[in-house]
Amino acid sequence: MKKKPLILVSNDDGIDAPGLHMMVKSLKRIARVAVVAPSIQQSAIGHAITVRTPLRAYKFHRNGTLFGYAVDGTPADCVKLGIRTLLKEKPALVMSGINDGLNTAVNVIYSGTVSAATEGTILGIPSISVSLEYTREPNFETAAKVAVTFAKFVLQYGLPEDTILNVNVPAISANKIKGIKYTRQGRSRWDDEFYQRKDPKNKDYYWLAGKMHILDRDEDVDQIALKSGYVSVTPIHFDLTHHQYLEMMRIEWNGKFKLKL
Amino acid sequence: MKKKPLILVSNDDGIDAPGLHMMVKSLKRIARVAVVAPSIQQSAIGHAITVRTPLRAYKFHRNGTLFGYAVDGTPADCVKLGIRTLLKEKPALVMSGINDGLNTAVNVIYSGTVSAATEGTILGIPSISVSLEYTREPNFETAAKVAVTFAKFVLQYGLPEDTILNVNVPAISANKIKGIKYTRQGRSRWDDEFYQRKDPKNKDYYWLAGKMHILDRDEDVDQIALKSGYVSVTPIHFDLTHHQYLEMMRIEWNGKFKLKL
Repeated sequence: MKKKPLILVSNDDGIDAPGLHMMVKSLKRIARVAVVAPSIQQSAIGHAITVRTPLRAYKFHRNGTLFGYAVDGTPADCVKLGIRTLLKEKPALVMSGINDGLNTAVNVIYSGTVSAATEGTILGIPSISVSLEYTREPNFETAAKVAVTFAKFVLQYGLPEDTILNVNVPAISANKIKGIKYTRQGRSRWDDEFYQRKDPKNKDYYWLAGKMHILDRDEDVDQIALKSGYVSVTPIHFDLTHHQYLEMMRIEWNGKFKLKL
Repeated sequence: MKKKPLILVSNDDGIDAPGLHMMVKSLKRIARVAVVAPSIQQSAIGHAITVRTPLRAYKFHRNGTLFGYAVDGTPADCVKLGIRTLLKEKPALVMSGINDGLNTAVNVIYSGTVSAATEGTILGIPSISVSLEYTREPNFETAAKVAVTFAKFVLQYGLPEDTILNVNVPAISANKIKGIKYTRQGRSRWDDEFYQRKDPKNKDYYWLAGKMHILDRDEDVDQIALKSGYVSVTPIHFDLTHHQYLEMMRIEWNGKFKLKL
């Protein structure tokens, strides 16, 4: 009998996060699951990796049985250390999430959830990031079913090299979800502001706040698709080159730009 | 008399880094300079921002005069806090660096230096990241001249919206530099390995090591241009959408993919 495929699960909310546990439970029906996740909450960590200090990995138990490894590092560290060292077998798929909050628009670049999936892809393994719209009392059940659907599809058909799936699920009941939309990362702006306050010793501190504004209105944009009741799936990559402007600058800068040394 | 433009300088090596000080010194000839940089080394921090804890900013003095603000946060935090709160005037340009080590190929996504410039761009200010190839005894003088050339050009002509310049300088003497090349981010692979060792209490720890391999050989690739003795300038953006595959998946997935809830 053929062995079930191995899926590596990570996240940025930490190994104890309900979203991760719900996804693991659902994925176990179709695969063997290994968990390597941060020991503590790592939201908005971006694609950080730990290079200046060593990492430690701890066996993490749940109900008396081994659940996975907790790493005192970033999501990208977890995936690197898991694949390179902790796991005896190369996983067929990396799943990151389920994040408690959307990873859409400009937030994609701040997202630890996405970075775990990106790291899997960099290491040559098809990878999917799954996030659920934030609510006070998140219900990860529907998002876990969405995760399983995508996992099965990618295990069967694969993904092109250097391509990550960024899946976002609206916080509405399953019967209200209209289907999926293939989307692009929306353009947006944060109007950040910092709350400036005094600590008990009367010294200033600053706390980041603010709201994200979506600048796009097209139906093929991640945020808009979610608002309309669709699951959004955006294929992303990590070639940051602005190819269009590269072509333009070769013409426009030519003659005008002089390197003075 | 017209006031000189204001340039905000940040980095990821910390406010005390020689690369930052050399760039500040050179930029002062063409601009007023404000420094907001991390209080400690933040390499490979990626595009992390601090959301779960408050930030503090300290006045940092050099030779008895105010040099800038040190922030106990990430490079992106510094740029956000600088522009939104600490500076009384909106800067005309954000310069990040000079980083002690290249930020090319896949390393761009791990780079704190690039993320400071990205954050500047997100906030609507033209931004440039400058990095020098790593050597045991870095000489930032040539790279600082390169930085000034780009700063002057961008102050005069601007940059398109959502476009960052990622400038990398080879560690060779000024008279050996052949000029600039307009490049794209190279494809590469890290063959990371983790050194597994025992601490004094005989517990395991892991330390990231490994080498980057460049998979591209074209002359228009960042790493290759540098090897040939050119300053590499890559226009980058933060739309991670894989537009090409998005078009393909709308055709290929159609009919095959069924969302099961």
